[in-house]
Amino acid sequence: MAEPPEAVNIGSKFDGVLELWSPRTVAEFNGLHVKLARGKGVFVWHTHEDTDELFWIQTGSVEIQMRDRPAVRLAAGDLFVVPAGVEHRPVVDDECELLLIEPANTPNTGDVATATEEEWI
Amino acid sequence: MAEPPEAVNIGSKFDGVLELWSPRTVAEFNGLHVKLARGKGVFVWHTHEDTDELFWIQTGSVEIQMRDRPAVRLAAGDLFVVPAGVEHRPVVDDECELLLIEPANTPNTGDVATATEEEWI
Repeated sequence: MAEPPEAVNIGSKFDGVLELWSPRTVAEFNGLHVKLARGKGVFVWHTHEDTDELFWIQTGSVEIQMRDRPAVRLAAGDLFVVPAGVEHRPVVDDECELLLIEPANTPNTGDVATATEEEWI
Repeated sequence: MAEPPEAVNIGSKFDGVLELWSPRTVAEFNGLHVKLARGKGVFVWHTHEDTDELFWIQTGSVEIQMRDRPAVRLAAGDLFVVPAGVEHRPVVDDECELLLIEPANTPNTGDVATATEEEWI
């Protein structure tokens, strides 16, 4: 019998998220990874063809720009789902802390060649 | 083309969660539902045979008791995954606010006959 995952304190885990736009994995369920990321500035336009992506803003604010529809402005406490196949990029004026949920091994740039390597903290 | 989901403010949505142990759905991604629930007292022992269940404590605290392993005590900000097939029950001294993520149509009691009917808020 596998041991259950430990309780994970999200606020504390952000202390281990040091680089911008480099999501770190903190939990797994049903093949999905819960990831924490720190964002500032403009990330690359990208698409996840096969999966929706859940964003939940923990601190700060972010604008999710999408090619085919109006941008959505999110502040701390807001949750938003970018549907599969929708090209998007987060744009952050001040630094923000984001929680993401998506399948394990989803490349953060939409492209394995340029993606941040998966790393648990 | 489907419209994207709206941004959802988690804190505000809890204003619409009135009954104890009656999760309400606020978002969907990849066939999973993000649900908000208010807990107080002792919930029934139950098992989700086919799915892990993610708990994230928003306010208050909760003890997740499991039949086959030690209980885990969670406070606000803590995230915990109950693995599929593990019988469990949440026990709450004071009232707490929980966020749950699990597949759409997962019965909250583990049994469709006694489960809270699915409802979006």
